[in-house]
Amino acid sequence: MLDYRLLEALSAVIETGGFEKAAQKLHLTQSAVSQRIRQLEHRLGQPVVLRRSPPVATALGRRLNNHLQQVKQLELGLLDEEQGEPIKIRLTVNADSMATWLPQAIAACPLSTQMDFDLVVEDQEVGLDRMRNGEVMACICAEAQPVNGGAVSSLGVLRYRALASPAFVERYRTQSEPKRLVDAPCLIFNRDDRLQHQFLEALGLPPPVRQHRVPSSEGFVEMALHGMGYGMLPELQVADYLASGQLVDVGPVFILDVPLYWHFWQTESAPLTALRRTVLDHASRLLQG
Amino acid sequence: MLDYRLLEALSAVIETGGFEKAAQKLHLTQSAVSQRIRQLEHRLGQPVVLRRSPPVATALGRRLNNHLQQVKQLELGLLDEEQGEPIKIRLTVNADSMATWLPQAIAACPLSTQMDFDLVVEDQEVGLDRMRNGEVMACICAEAQPVNGGAVSSLGVLRYRALASPAFVERYRTQSEPKRLVDAPCLIFNRDDRLQHQFLEALGLPPPVRQHRVPSSEGFVEMALHGMGYGMLPELQVADYLASGQLVDVGPVFILDVPLYWHFWQTESAPLTALRRTVLDHASRLLQG
Repeated sequence: MLDYRLLEALSAVIETGGFEKAAQKLHLTQSAVSQRIRQLEHRLGQPVVLRRSPPVATALGRRLNNHLQQVKQLELGLLDEEQGEPIKIRLTVNADSMATWLPQAIAACPLSTQMDFDLVVEDQEVGLDRMRNGEVMACICAEAQPVNGGAVSSLGVLRYRALASPAFVERYRTQSEPKRLVDAPCLIFNRDDRLQHQFLEALGLPPPVRQHRVPSSEGFVEMALHGMGYGMLPELQVADYLASGQLVDVGPVFILDVPLYWHFWQTESAPLTALRRTVLDHASRLLQG
Repeated sequence: MLDYRLLEALSAVIETGGFEKAAQKLHLTQSAVSQRIRQLEHRLGQPVVLRRSPPVATALGRRLNNHLQQVKQLELGLLDEEQGEPIKIRLTVNADSMATWLPQAIAACPLSTQMDFDLVVEDQEVGLDRMRNGEVMACICAEAQPVNGGAVSSLGVLRYRALASPAFVERYRTQSEPKRLVDAPCLIFNRDDRLQHQFLEALGLPPPVRQHRVPSSEGFVEMALHGMGYGMLPELQVADYLASGQLVDVGPVFILDVPLYWHFWQTESAPLTALRRTVLDHASRLLQG
């Protein structure tokens, strides 16, 4: 069996980002922490942490850390909930869920006051890879297929609409002549964001010539509001601006429903099951069916 | 002198994220693009792109790409503004500026309709490194010291306040007993975010025991609104919630003013000067003096 004191040292180094801070957290000397890490590496025959500033966990180190968190979760199930240490929930999530419906959904879980969340915003592919590597306990993304050893619950869909400010629509005349969308500046979240391309494809148009790259959900909305470009925006995030007319359909009405799934491990602990159920319940009301 | 046809091939590969897409963009065959990249590398004696999927520019490749953009900017100054190609503006910016005041400020620049923005959200240190490496044309961050060959304009300060929901304050009784802040869950943006630590230090308290890591400006606000934790929030972003009482001071009133600076190159082109002046002008109204 693994020596969990060594794993706790590893976990503290990864989470605090330094040997000295880890020592403070564990009430140990720095050399005791270093020794535990060396001992762990000696037993496993592989490095678990790269000695950089801040230290970086190796793939093995990340798996061990994740394993420790899962063991702690299982322990939590054994103990009186009020007495247990906070349980660490590491979750990858797409940027638009993070910015819109997710905080409300996790706050609704009665156990959430005993959870410490480490939310990681990632593109779908990277998020799923982190799940595959065992670096995270759950992953919210658009992929329906579970990873090996994992399972999937459907959350519903996030509805996107192609929107811009009225001034933008007037300047580029995109409503009367949709083909002008090709030359009008388009907002994209990052290089992997294909939603705008899908919109143009659906209209039989080529990809946008001009792009602003805006890797921030709120920045994306602000850029649209101030007439810098058009883009696919979650209706949930811009309901007020649609109601007030500050955002309008940039061309023909175009709705894109992006399905979202909660990926979890088949060995899911009881608190994580409780969290998942609350989130599913909330998602069924906040997202489209 | 450099062969700019080769640099354009490099730039297209970096920006489209592939040799095939670069070929489409340049109306060339894929092998012609590969040949130009090889030719460039042969002349310089160093790789400019790592052949991964997507291809990754080396440090030299990034410098060359940035140089090409600067040359294009200078060319733009020569031509009739209405006829020039859109000018690409690559800018690193802190997450909270991206989510709050910046879109409005750049939209106010009359030249912004001819600019394509590539906004990169980075922590201060990484952002400044990208500036030092010549990967970006400008950088908004809290560092007052210019990089080599660069200069700095002051934008004003972003004012943060330590806030939480009324339900959170009631549950953890942090207003009547500020020392409870140490054990109450604290929101941090990422590991490098020290604002909350500064708040506790100012109260003579040790670092927070419980943390939620929420690397999203809007997610951070949502987590606070839903009572998941307390954190330092930009007043500019939460003015409505302060007015409605949905967010309140979590303990003794604590205000932290983070200064912001616009880093630019001394060789700044005319359009970039115009942009910087508009942004400075707007910032002087949106940010604290």
